[in-house]
Amino acid sequence: MTDLIDDMLRRAREARRALAKSSAAQRDDALGKIAAVIDRWDGTILPANAEDMEIAKEQGISSSMLDRLRLNASRLRAISESARAVAALPDPLGEERELGTRPNGLKVSKRRVPLGVIAVVYEARPNVTVECAALCIKSGNAIVLRGGKEAMGSNRVLARAVRQGLADAGLPVDCVQLVHDAGREHVAALLGATGRVDLCIPRGGAKLMEMVDAHAKVPVIRHGQGICHVYVDEGADAKMAAEVAVNAKVSRPGVCNSMETLLVHKSVIDGGLWLEIAKRMRENGVMLRVDERCAKALSDAKIEHLVAKDSDWDTEFLSLELAVRAVDSLDEAMEHIAKHGTEHTASIVSGDRARAERFLREVEASCVLWNASTRFNDGGELGLGAEIGISTSRMHAWGPMGLRELTAEKYVVVGEGQVRG
Amino acid sequence: MTDLIDDMLRRAREARRALAKSSAAQRDDALGKIAAVIDRWDGTILPANAEDMEIAKEQGISSSMLDRLRLNASRLRAISESARAVAALPDPLGEERELGTRPNGLKVSKRRVPLGVIAVVYEARPNVTVECAALCIKSGNAIVLRGGKEAMGSNRVLARAVRQGLADAGLPVDCVQLVHDAGREHVAALLGATGRVDLCIPRGGAKLMEMVDAHAKVPVIRHGQGICHVYVDEGADAKMAAEVAVNAKVSRPGVCNSMETLLVHKSVIDGGLWLEIAKRMRENGVMLRVDERCAKALSDAKIEHLVAKDSDWDTEFLSLELAVRAVDSLDEAMEHIAKHGTEHTASIVSGDRARAERFLREVEASCVLWNASTRFNDGGELGLGAEIGISTSRMHAWGPMGLRELTAEKYVVVGEGQVRG
Repeated sequence: MTDLIDDMLRRAREARRALAKSSAAQRDDALGKIAAVIDRWDGTILPANAEDMEIAKEQGISSSMLDRLRLNASRLRAISESARAVAALPDPLGEERELGTRPNGLKVSKRRVPLGVIAVVYEARPNVTVECAALCIKSGNAIVLRGGKEAMGSNRVLARAVRQGLADAGLPVDCVQLVHDAGREHVAALLGATGRVDLCIPRGGAKLMEMVDAHAKVPVIRHGQGICHVYVDEGADAKMAAEVAVNAKVSRPGVCNSMETLLVHKSVIDGGLWLEIAKRMRENGVMLRVDERCAKALSDAKIEHLVAKDSDWDTEFLSLELAVRAVDSLDEAMEHIAKHGTEHTASIVSGDRARAERFLREVEASCVLWNASTRFNDGGELGLGAEIGISTSRMHAWGPMGLRELTAEKYVVVGEGQVRG
Repeated sequence: MTDLIDDMLRRAREARRALAKSSAAQRDDALGKIAAVIDRWDGTILPANAEDMEIAKEQGISSSMLDRLRLNASRLRAISESARAVAALPDPLGEERELGTRPNGLKVSKRRVPLGVIAVVYEARPNVTVECAALCIKSGNAIVLRGGKEAMGSNRVLARAVRQGLADAGLPVDCVQLVHDAGREHVAALLGATGRVDLCIPRGGAKLMEMVDAHAKVPVIRHGQGICHVYVDEGADAKMAAEVAVNAKVSRPGVCNSMETLLVHKSVIDGGLWLEIAKRMRENGVMLRVDERCAKALSDAKIEHLVAKDSDWDTEFLSLELAVRAVDSLDEAMEHIAKHGTEHTASIVSGDRARAERFLREVEASCVLWNASTRFNDGGELGLGAEIGISTSRMHAWGPMGLRELTAEKYVVVGEGQVRG
């Protein structure tokens, strides 16, 4: 435990008690006021972000990382809108499920309550700061945010804006706190704060997950890597297969639900569909890393490609690179996914219901799809409203985590003096 | 990692794949066959248990522990019946929730799947061995059982009976494995087996929870101590208050949902109800450990009692001992529960709806009750059928954990070639 985190968690636990007692109207009001402050402070937020960008460029940060870091007027507007959108969602704490009356007359229900204090450790996108804070405020949880050092300047102003909005609405500002020090010892402190952090959500790559493995003592829901697969089955509709595969790879290659490995049935190579997909990928600037069988067709057609290395099957490229492998059967495809997937997202393109149903049933991933892009594994797209991330842990929440997944349920029992025999 | 656990987990992961693919009928058939083997093997199980009892007596084990360890013909029959009862419950894996069709035509649902490999670490009751195994088989999970060393002889035969039943039903016997070595290093190995144990359920006291704090790397749902409270409010119905309090304490003092601390409003002392409750407790052999205000009334009435020590408020007696404290208000009662409770169970006896609603809303426990005994925080009593224990963790499952809580949900998305814009 570091002194910094010790102090922050003490404040957070105190603040969350007032937050848990506040009304839904008051929390929604705070989200509206936060949005207003962000809109009003654009003249402070955008220069702070520009400074982050300058420093990041000096340090030679990759262009995809720079793009994730960059704010402009419209992106900032999208951030304040995200807070308003969370305000407009139904109150998760208002939910009470009646479980019925027991034979002895006891009335049993379950009532949603906040989890308590949530710590989120994330990387360079400054919008995450506001989105996570908004979701936690709405669900009655205090939050401690630890963003990437690249976005520190942007995050400082954004967190201050959030706290100003809380103050304007009469809620305790310490419901939302940002770790202002990039030292990794503070991440270890958050992960080890048993009884003081009720949930830690690490969002990031393999390095962060190693840190989680080494230090986590508190409940963790990992938002880990997405090594997502699309399998193009024998006899798949050619146009659909190409559309889905290209969309899964190129629509936003830097996010976790984009495809990293394409598996194609051997007949897809012989039938020419593979060449069609490969051409479309190349037109979109995708570098192909393919196995021997796929390579042969590409060499014959003089389509540029690399030969896949073993490590490619376990790589989350997050860029315009794609590993491709031919398989002899659905079973071989599912074996590959079981071995190399991260239980994130997998899609089958198939015209055969029986094989598709087997895929949906047997593949272990937070979201399995039939004839749809992997990019739909997203809270907004699946109807949750907003999400704090996509869980790769099975416990508590698997897949997109929305407001409901930031709560617990307690049993509420009402009797007339019943005792147990 | 110990070699023993390494080998067991390797087998469990392999076995659970076949189990996850089995039909509900096949799993139910296995549970019936397990029950039959237990009934048939009474001549082996009871002598093994008698031997455990002899050794436990030699080692001076407490009488409450001995009672938990003891089997006889009717208790053994209850164990085989518990397996049949689990078979009769609805299949949790058959559940699929439709979440509707998205504007783009995607059909979204959630489907229940097993968690994978579950490790349960528990204490002396041999019935737990069969109950946990039955719940895991039914929910498609492999289980590694690590019971207390006192029950080792009983557990060995019972686990063998379960495996025989699995074999009779054509399911892999390694779905259920018992750790045959009482060394605590194997508990540490289970707790640290990242990626190989999907959930560890520790059921036990403070010592086991310390071990969890020190070693847990895998997802854990604690089934920790129950320091459960009853608060008798101002103006509570006297007869009801006495009935509920006595039932909460004496109906089964050795279990986690029994009351450990009684809080009484000061008016309850002045009005004489406290003396009535105290007399009833004494008639039932309860030793009273009371604060000063409660003690005065008892001294005047010559009712035997002890003066409470500070540590009594944080003690799970699990015996006929009760801490009692007078409070000035509902708020003071709730403060006490927040400070000393274990988020397990709390009940208010009150005729005042507004105060009762505040208690139900503000007290943080897996089960809050109004005018009912704490003993109702139990899977059977709350309508879950059977339970693997009572969770004191908020994440995933809080309170009794039944079959559904032994599963995860994955998103299943069916489209017609949809791509994301």
